[in-house]
Amino acid sequence: MSRVYLDYNATTPVRAEAREAMVAAMDVAGNPSSVHAEGRAAKGLVEAARVQVADAIGASGADVVFVSGATEAAALACKGRDLLGAAVEHDAVAGWIDPVLPVDGQGRVTVEEPARSVLQWANSETGVVQALPQGLAVSDLTQGVGRLPFAFSWAGIGMGFLSAHKFGGPKGVGALVFPQGTDVAAQITGGGQEMGRRSGTENVIGIAGMGAAIGAALRDLEDGVWSRVEKLRNILESGVEAASKETILVGKGAARLPNTTCMITPGWKGETQVMAMDLAGIAISAGSACSSGKVKASTVLQAMGFDEDLAASAIRVSLGPETTQEDVMRFVDVWTQKQKRHRQRSV
Amino acid sequence: MSRVYLDYNATTPVRAEAREAMVAAMDVAGNPSSVHAEGRAAKGLVEAARVQVADAIGASGADVVFVSGATEAAALACKGRDLLGAAVEHDAVAGWIDPVLPVDGQGRVTVEEPARSVLQWANSETGVVQALPQGLAVSDLTQGVGRLPFAFSWAGIGMGFLSAHKFGGPKGVGALVFPQGTDVAAQITGGGQEMGRRSGTENVIGIAGMGAAIGAALRDLEDGVWSRVEKLRNILESGVEAASKETILVGKGAARLPNTTCMITPGWKGETQVMAMDLAGIAISAGSACSSGKVKASTVLQAMGFDEDLAASAIRVSLGPETTQEDVMRFVDVWTQKQKRHRQRSV
Repeated sequence: MSRVYLDYNATTPVRAEAREAMVAAMDVAGNPSSVHAEGRAAKGLVEAARVQVADAIGASGADVVFVSGATEAAALACKGRDLLGAAVEHDAVAGWIDPVLPVDGQGRVTVEEPARSVLQWANSETGVVQALPQGLAVSDLTQGVGRLPFAFSWAGIGMGFLSAHKFGGPKGVGALVFPQGTDVAAQITGGGQEMGRRSGTENVIGIAGMGAAIGAALRDLEDGVWSRVEKLRNILESGVEAASKETILVGKGAARLPNTTCMITPGWKGETQVMAMDLAGIAISAGSACSSGKVKASTVLQAMGFDEDLAASAIRVSLGPETTQEDVMRFVDVWTQKQKRHRQRSV
Repeated sequence: MSRVYLDYNATTPVRAEAREAMVAAMDVAGNPSSVHAEGRAAKGLVEAARVQVADAIGASGADVVFVSGATEAAALACKGRDLLGAAVEHDAVAGWIDPVLPVDGQGRVTVEEPARSVLQWANSETGVVQALPQGLAVSDLTQGVGRLPFAFSWAGIGMGFLSAHKFGGPKGVGALVFPQGTDVAAQITGGGQEMGRRSGTENVIGIAGMGAAIGAALRDLEDGVWSRVEKLRNILESGVEAASKETILVGKGAARLPNTTCMITPGWKGETQVMAMDLAGIAISAGSACSSGKVKASTVLQAMGFDEDLAASAIRVSLGPETTQEDVMRFVDVWTQKQKRHRQRSV
């Protein structure tokens, strides 16, 4: 039986359009900084992708700086700026902020001083979506891009960043976006690429893949693909609720991504659930992928008020455009079986 | 007529082996930090490439940290360490060093305190190869890897770094190498990938391409491909010397890369030569690719004692495994014609 991949918030399969663009880019030999025809062809790929990214996130007139992913972008956006944030931010942001902003039981963050604050758009573990206040300094857009409509130019935020592999592009490429004229001092200096904001020969193949992927993701969004995904996610949650009354669906009272379920089953370790489901052919996660190697309770869930035991008993199930109703039914069936067996053993 | 690409020091075409590995990696959907089967498959690609890189540069027992390229690696290796270097270092290194080390007319650098110094292995503009002293703090190995034999474990240097796109891998991926146990504080923090030295979801496709490329490059090196390239380079230089007595072949008295010619033709701007050759279908460069957008005289050549006018009248011709004798003859023919015409106009 083929595997069921329900870990789209960790990373997504490479879209056909991205694959095609990347394979085509492999034939473009030049360095984008070279002035000859080969160099100009490579530069053309990078600049075309820059337009694709800007168009897809409604950032016309903004600067789009390509970096190696959201983690590098977070450092470039936040390091040394004494910004405030909440304890639900991703580890990539957490190192650069003072985590003082209050979080409620549904994962909603209160921002009092937008100009001094960082706020993620959507949480990777719970899918909880924040209302981004006008004038916000920085937003981590990683989990929202391609899944929810967005216009950077209308959002009124100082900086946003995204990662290609969350919407069908390759891993290892992302972008930092900000209004033209924003002062951004490079952290990696050298050749002066990316308008002096980020040196280093550009990841041309990855950037071409990112541009194609975000274009395809936007078409999916406009075609209502995520409404279909949301219905599947709701079927999944109904199935879980029918099977296990004590299971808590985290953040269900808040606005959430259409594809994400975070569920706590008291007394049943998330890591144990992930391993059991993996052996049964289903890929899910406990917490964010980055920290999944470390067996520790989710800090995101603890920030929402869950105690350490409950926070350690969570799994995340995240769907994508390729997810089918059969995938979801299989998850519910297998999880229900495993959960019953776990309960029998625990009694 | 097809184009002739003689700018391998700027970047190289993607090798067939790298292309194949990258296309295969596109089918591996997982995040290397995920514990499920998909994640482990992605992790496997990254770890296999790590072994390929370590094997190819004779760095068994060393740590190999994947980064977004040599520029990021240079920052990770050099930033905040108050290291000494020479004015011939690449821009990626230049921002982090005190450029006090003496350079002779052939581009050779004298290092007095290896433990406090950075020294490139080979210069990107001139191809001049340095003898790396035992105990050297950091070496930029970018232009040497795959072109000259090397064993990191025997070199006795503290850190070395390399970039995939200089030996047939993709742009946007590189590695920093150092003996196990070396203290390297991450500059990009977050998920704790790369043993805590460099956070961010790994560029799995690029890393797979880098591993395959360096393996293929090593086989080429062992097969004597670069001896053939060196013969072509020498034919090219003989042709130039026969055509133009005033042209200076830079660094010819020093050890050089087998593929690089840097030549100064007094009174004929490098940029003009690059444009004329490009129009005739031949890709070369004036200085390093990174700075080629900026029309300024090479700081490398000025550090070697050439005045600003001479330094601005240089071109770099760099060959690769795919270069043929026809390519070289065509360069010599076209350059000779252009040079005659330039001289006639100047009289």
